[in-house]
Amino acid sequence: MKLGDGVEQAIHSVTLLAALPAEGVLSAAALAEFYGVSTSYLLKHLQALSGAGIVHAVSGPSGGYRLAKTPEKITLLDIVLAVEGPEPAFRCKEIRRNGPKPLAKRYFKAPCQVNAAMLRAEQAYRQALRAVTVAQLIAEVKSDDDGSIARRSCAFFDQNMRQPGSKP
Amino acid sequence: MKLGDGVEQAIHSVTLLAALPAEGVLSAAALAEFYGVSTSYLLKHLQALSGAGIVHAVSGPSGGYRLAKTPEKITLLDIVLAVEGPEPAFRCKEIRRNGPKPLAKRYFKAPCQVNAAMLRAEQAYRQALRAVTVAQLIAEVKSDDDGSIARRSCAFFDQNMRQPGSKP
Ligand code: FES
Ligand code: FES
Repeated sequence: MKLGDGVEQAIHSVTLLAALPAEGVLSAAALAEFYGVSTSYLLKHLQALSGAGIVHAVSGPSGGYRLAKTPEKITLLDIVLAVEGPEPAFRCKEIRRNGPKPLAKRYFKAPCQVNAAMLRAEQAYRQALRAVTVAQLIAEVKSDDDGSIARRSCAFFDQNMRQPGSKP
Repeated sequence: MKLGDGVEQAIHSVTLLAALPAEGVLSAAALAEFYGVSTSYLLKHLQALSGAGIVHAVSGPSGGYRLAKTPEKITLLDIVLAVEGPEPAFRCKEIRRNGPKPLAKRYFKAPCQVNAAMLRAEQAYRQALRAVTVAQLIAEVKSDDDGSIARRSCAFFDQNMRQPGSKP
């Protein structure tokens, strides 16, 4: 079982966008530079986040990304499902129906007990991810920060933030 | 996030082996036939289960697989980890260390808050899988069985069971 690298990049991008001043946006290239990752790859994940209503994409030459809702309203589950898709990790192929002299159809009306147990575990996983908001993550980072982490982000914003609403 | 098809095949194979009479074994080919899956693929997973001490492989012409411990002692987590490996689904690449003007090393002594949150969710997932034993799954199947499921397994064992200890 493996989550793609996109999950780490997407969660961190959202936490950085949460620190942006109002009206500011960051381009995919700037976010990719901040995290040292491939722009084209990150762009795919930003589009997934945009499709899920987590970030808002402003188009045009001074466009970029900003959060589409407050960090209190974004959970880790929202981001993971946006990037990885909604399907559960365990995908039952109904192998119980295969093989010699199969049972009658009525035995397969209830979901397979194995599948049900695996899906209960997935629900526990999702519940744990749903319990963590981006606002909480940011608060945890802040509580460990002597100011250097915030200063670094601010310096990066000074160089890279765009303001789509303002005159060029 | 996706688990391989091997997890479904491995869990079901273990439940079938749990129903085998003492001293009996099933070949990989017989198990593959019962579930309508590829023998070579299933063999790989049986070897993983064997490596994890969940099944015991008896070699020789009348060899095959049987459980290495009682179904009460085998959890879904044991099987999933045997087939999928021990690594967590989320793999932090430490992207917080990348980018322009990186922070000093001391900021990275504690694990990243994002990574910590993702690993807490993984622990919830594993805890839910650890809470389910193969014995419980079998009891659930039995409680839904009017006898047909057990009869089908028995008929299959009659045709396919090997007894490595007995004379040919
Ligand atoms: S048939 Fe798919 S998990 Fe049982
Ligand atoms: S650096 Fe990997 S999750 Fe934060």
